Amino acid sequence: MERTLIKDLSAKVGQEVLLKGWIQELRNLSKIKFLILRDRTGDMQTVAFNGDTEEDSFKAIDDFTKESVIEIVGLVKENKTSRWGIEIGIKSVKMVSLSEVPLPIDNSDKSQTNIDKRLDFRFLDTRNLKTQSIFKVRGKITKSCVNFLDANGFTNIHTPKITTLGVESGAELFKVDYFGKPIFLSQSPQIYKQMFVAGGFERVYEIAPVFRAEKSHTTRHLTEFTGVDFEMAFIKDETEIMDFIEKMFTNLLTNLKEECVGELKTLEVEPIIPEKFPRLTMKEAKEMLKEKGKTYSDDEDLDAEGEMLLGGIIKEKFGSEFVFITKFPWAVRPFYHMKDELGDTKSFDLLFNGVEICTGAQREHRYEILKQQAAEKGLDMKEMEKYGEIFRYGCPPHGGVGFGLDRITQRFLNLENVREAVLLPRDPERMDP
Amino acid sequence: MERTLIKDLSAKVGQEVLLKGWIQELRNLSKIKFLILRDRTGDMQTVAFNGDTEEDSFKAIDDFTKESVIEIVGLVKENKTSRWGIEIGIKSVKMVSLSEVPLPIDNSDKSQTNIDKRLDFRFLDTRNLKTQSIFKVRGKITKSCVNFLDANGFTNIHTPKITTLGVESGAELFKVDYFGKPIFLSQSPQIYKQMFVAGGFERVYEIAPVFRAEKSHTTRHLTEFTGVDFEMAFIKDETEIMDFIEKMFTNLLTNLKEECVGELKTLEVEPIIPEKFPRLTMKEAKEMLKEKGKTYSDDEDLDAEGEMLLGGIIKEKFGSEFVFITKFPWAVRPFYHMKDELGDTKSFDLLFNGVEICTGAQREHRYEILKQQAAEKGLDMKEMEKYGEIFRYGCPPHGGVGFGLDRITQRFLNLENVREAVLLPRDPERMDP
Repeated sequence: MERTLIKDLSAKVGQEVLLKGWIQELRNLSKIKFLILRDRTGDMQTVAFNGDTEEDSFKAIDDFTKESVIEIVGLVKENKTSRWGIEIGIKSVKMVSLSEVPLPIDNSDKSQTNIDKRLDFRFLDTRNLKTQSIFKVRGKITKSCVNFLDANGFTNIHTPKITTLGVESGAELFKVDYFGKPIFLSQSPQIYKQMFVAGGFERVYEIAPVFRAEKSHTTRHLTEFTGVDFEMAFIKDETEIMDFIEKMFTNLLTNLKEECVGELKTLEVEPIIPEKFPRLTMKEAKEMLKEKGKTYSDDEDLDAEGEMLLGGIIKEKFGSEFVFITKFPWAVRPFYHMKDELGDTKSFDLLFNGVEICTGAQREHRYEILKQQAAEKGLDMKEMEKYGEIFRYGCPPHGGVGFGLDRITQRFLNLENVREAVLLPRDPERMDP
Repeated sequence: MERTLIKDLSAKVGQEVLLKGWIQELRNLSKIKFLILRDRTGDMQTVAFNGDTEEDSFKAIDDFTKESVIEIVGLVKENKTSRWGIEIGIKSVKMVSLSEVPLPIDNSDKSQTNIDKRLDFRFLDTRNLKTQSIFKVRGKITKSCVNFLDANGFTNIHTPKITTLGVESGAELFKVDYFGKPIFLSQSPQIYKQMFVAGGFERVYEIAPVFRAEKSHTTRHLTEFTGVDFEMAFIKDETEIMDFIEKMFTNLLTNLKEECVGELKTLEVEPIIPEKFPRLTMKEAKEMLKEKGKTYSDDEDLDAEGEMLLGGIIKEKFGSEFVFITKFPWAVRPFYHMKDELGDTKSFDLLFNGVEICTGAQREHRYEILKQQAAEKGLDMKEMEKYGEIFRYGCPPHGGVGFGLDRITQRFLNLENVREAVLLPRDPERMDP
């Protein structure tokens, strides 16, 4: 018999089916035994009755343990009182893989196990359908980004994660022993994205790990995260990138609403499909925050608290979960962001429910001006020869953006800690599993 | 005026258009100037005539250099003698970004520049439309795999690339300084794929970088490559994985034929859409090779020469570019591959045009047997506690496979060196750009 997935059972009332999965719950009475079976598509009540169920199978259940893998042959029956509307009358069961007891963590919906312990046994934690749903949504976000960027003429690239090049500050790099020579883990594909925009592709994207050797202990920072980066050439200015991001998120949330019906229900999330995102200059944002009693100097960036506060103001004022903050002061942006006529940068952040999920900008592609800007920041382009080369042999105007996939997932699903959106997070204290 | 892409020009005969791109070729005569313009969609002859072209523009062209970025406003005209059937009569041109001359490499179709030098200036190399086509095809391979695996119920996962865990031999690991503690670059997502199969997802896939600290200097090996890995639960045996791979490649090659028409023409590749791949046991493969004078002992794996020879035999005999070699001897497989009744492994390799592009197997999911198999290989499961845990709390039968995206691309496009299919390859001698 072919296996039936739990999600397909409701169409098979009256039929005999073969189910495979894990025992989520187990209750043994003398004449009746309840097993909640779980597979990757859902859970289902299955019932063994003394007499209806084969004798050997009925007895065998006594030795079953929670989280064991079993196969069940049974009959799909209506049951108006169960929360599924149906249940499975067990004919026979087969033990496939017996679980040790007790489990090292409680992975039930009522679990009080703290996140640290849950991460130690993440593969037991993800068996919980709520936790599992987070990662199914995350997977669909990846797929949606791939297809949207591809459909818009972006070429998928894979650039080196071990590299001697970088354009950000060198303080946060992990060092790798490369056959006795030092090499570093890439903390951004920035240089490579720009390289291949100039390399004739014009539009490139990459979804790949990014590494930051920051000793941060926040609910937002990790030492390894998944970056969604794209870069596009022949733009008028940075507003073209923002327009494109709006389309990308409208497309993304529409797709998620269609493809993750069950997961979003499980997670109690209803996507609000946005159209235009409000756009505030940094000055305007600071004025709004000032009204709420939070003040910043002109050359300051917002902190996490300010971003969260602003997210609330925007939601209330515009009904939007998203907001672009534009025209960041030069003092808080890297040397390669293009300046505007007032000396601010042609750059922006995107906040999603009060958390920064991306930073973008038009890049300075004019080599002479780029050299000046590097000098202003105390950097010498001579020490970034390979970066400088990009601009010397014909480089179109361009700009782009880097997202954190983990943060997009976190904010979309209203998760408190970014670690909830990462299977196996890495931070200064966590190196395994 | 909106920009027109070169690929859309043939539908615009008689219209005025705005083009943006790079100068691929440049020929200045006194009364007529030819510029071949290139954008991400193709190249096109554009012509400036003294009198027709604005005077300032006509003069300006004298100072233009190859590979500079320009904008052209011009008229689309029929020209039966040009290889495009059309050409652009230039009204005006604008210099956007002037290229230095001479270029450090020749990136024309006639280039004799060796691969090492080309990789030093890869972004100039990829401006060549032939080279660029390789990476557009590669990008479409990624997209096709994402969509096929997603459509078949696989969850996309991102697992850590810095880790203390591993199930392969420890000799080939790159060491990273993790806040003063040692951590390693992942040389395979194997342990994590199995972890999340057991973690309730049943079917998972990952497309991500993989690192091997091998001092190899071949045309097939790199220290960093892109792995396409998947793992599936509740399989009957390894043949189910092979069946699935056949479907995946049929789908992939069908997609490439549809979506990469221009690229495949440029690269002179005609995909042969396969259906069933021939399957040979290792014994049968060795017998075929013996007939050609190449002999191996029973416990030996094929070498690169043997694989290439076998690829030729299979192509001749079955008309197939693909062949599965099955039932690898236990001696050449890792401890976690499941054994069959004869003591061989339930494993396989897939050769594509004579090169191994993947290794797959059913995994041993029965913990007691796995421990024995580890001991047979001189390993102690106690030292792989986190790996062992996967099997202790209910683990379904499962198996999977790891592909090299670089090698798939290489073999599909008949490229001699895997480096041709990687934007910026890494090997013991190459750490940048």
